[in-house]
Amino acid sequence: MTVLILTCEEDVTADMVVVHLHGSGVPVVRLDPADLTAGVSLSGEYVHGRFRGHLSTGGRLVSIGGLRSVWVRRPGTPAGRAAQPSPWLTEEAAQALYGMLRGSDARWMNHPDAARQARHKPWQLRLAQRCGLPVPATLITTFPRAAREFAERFPDLVVKPVSGAHPQDPPRAVPTSRVAPDTDFTAVAFGPTLLQRRIAKRADIRLTAVGERLLAARKAAYPGAEPVEVDVRFAPPGAPWEPVDVPPRLADSVRTYLREAELAYGAFDFAEDADGTWWFLECNQSGQFGFVEVETGQPIARTVAEWLARPVPEETVEVDRTPTTAC
Amino acid sequence: MTVLILTCEEDVTADMVVVHLHGSGVPVVRLDPADLTAGVSLSGEYVHGRFRGHLSTGGRLVSIGGLRSVWVRRPGTPAGRAAQPSPWLTEEAAQALYGMLRGSDARWMNHPDAARQARHKPWQLRLAQRCGLPVPATLITTFPRAAREFAERFPDLVVKPVSGAHPQDPPRAVPTSRVAPDTDFTAVAFGPTLLQRRIAKRADIRLTAVGERLLAARKAAYPGAEPVEVDVRFAPPGAPWEPVDVPPRLADSVRTYLREAELAYGAFDFAEDADGTWWFLECNQSGQFGFVEVETGQPIARTVAEWLARPVPEETVEVDRTPTTAC
Repeated sequence: MTVLILTCEEDVTADMVVVHLHGSGVPVVRLDPADLTAGVSLSGEYVHGRFRGHLSTGGRLVSIGGLRSVWVRRPGTPAGRAAQPSPWLTEEAAQALYGMLRGSDARWMNHPDAARQARHKPWQLRLAQRCGLPVPATLITTFPRAAREFAERFPDLVVKPVSGAHPQDPPRAVPTSRVAPDTDFTAVAFGPTLLQRRIAKRADIRLTAVGERLLAARKAAYPGAEPVEVDVRFAPPGAPWEPVDVPPRLADSVRTYLREAELAYGAFDFAEDADGTWWFLECNQSGQFGFVEVETGQPIARTVAEWLARPVPEETVEVDRTPTTAC
Repeated sequence: MTVLILTCEEDVTADMVVVHLHGSGVPVVRLDPADLTAGVSLSGEYVHGRFRGHLSTGGRLVSIGGLRSVWVRRPGTPAGRAAQPSPWLTEEAAQALYGMLRGSDARWMNHPDAARQARHKPWQLRLAQRCGLPVPATLITTFPRAAREFAERFPDLVVKPVSGAHPQDPPRAVPTSRVAPDTDFTAVAFGPTLLQRRIAKRADIRLTAVGERLLAARKAAYPGAEPVEVDVRFAPPGAPWEPVDVPPRLADSVRTYLREAELAYGAFDFAEDADGTWWFLECNQSGQFGFVEVETGQPIARTVAEWLARPVPEETVEVDRTPTTAC
């Protein structure tokens, strides 16, 4: 049973996982959907109520029925590097590849539908609430009056984009910023705006969840003046990331979140306040983990490899129903 | 509890359903996501572990928590008609609207993720097989040799696009066509190709599934020479659509398909052969039904309205967990 990794060529995070898979002797096939029809081929046959499918890359042929797991890392646009790329060819190639893989019994990290749902920030906030995670008071609105009233109740606010940055998009130019007390909210009417109570944080928490395993790291906040930019991506370098234990009750909530979201992998960002409370900011279903692993030494890549390599449980091996007629 | 219909202004099929909903006194709000920020407003607040959200259109305010169902009919691109439309605004508006709706307890016809999955033809064929539906022998391939061998085993073939036409795309220029016996399959290497054994059909079957209810119609094949074009959309007008009973075993398979696909609505196309067997061709999760209802008198719009109007079962009313800290 083979592990299939869908990613681009230059992906050092995938390299880290592949090393562990090779070490454990598990067969791995790595391909980029962008190479479809030029380097990557596929074929699937539906005859007599059965499906037999294959993928081919670099001279290797792998059976779709023989996949134990699919890791959707950083796949390129299907057929994006074909000799004559076109939106039509991309659509056909995407349908063919993902349509066949979706029909397989392989386990996904993460399933494309779960991944898509998980990118919706408003849905994340609601799910986090339902799972008992502390969520800072948040408003998403196109009503200027609602924004004004919210700013009166919670004067110390940050503004963020509603949409989490898509992993394959260029970085967005709208970081998390503090809202000045005298802000005019009229422009809210022209586009949904996310306002959130600012957490006066003493540390950032990155909790990487791989299946049931949770690996948390903590980075003490920059010990200086409070910056106007509160997005960690734009902050000056501070303390290093260090491993930290996950409070048991919070761990329960995170596992519930993953189960409800049908995610096998998630990178949670929390802000730790002066009381030690971890406030949920977001869960990125494809968040990077290399930088945390390098600084903390936590075995995230190995844990991902172990999840991908896990054997398919026997009870999921499917028995087809006999079709009502011979095909 | 309100029914929310997401569709464009000119949608006579939605009109048919709205008439029935009005007749039964169920509150209905209809809006087009394209009108977001210009005509349609939204607001959602996450405070103290609770969510309170609202949509506003045409002077009406509806609570997101008070939605009993969401019908995703023919929604426009979010914020597509805003004063200054942009891909960024569309992304933000889509995230805000669908992100909030996804967090609600409303029933979906159809949920966006189920709809997306259901558009994958290769996945449809595999699921149909698994549910015991007769599926004509089919090959999807980029291997010219596989295509040649398949054509030797099944000389009477049609070729189709792999991707089902997206409901909002302009009609595609690639209808279902017969494959000539001397076809050169070399070009298959440049794009995935779907080859399917042609069913010598004596009738087309359109089976419209609304929840558990199945309404089938039959249209006898054009009683003349066999046309080269076998796609019913391009065929000359023949017999009218007439109601037909669904064979019980096939009905079981169709219901299993819908359950596995998590679809509340599906329009199945079958080809009936000389033995009376219904061969699965496809299931369009957003297939039109107006033309069948008009010709057959089958109460499809009323059945859709009844499904949308069904009260929310009490056991699904959710009890939030207490957050681990006050928010």
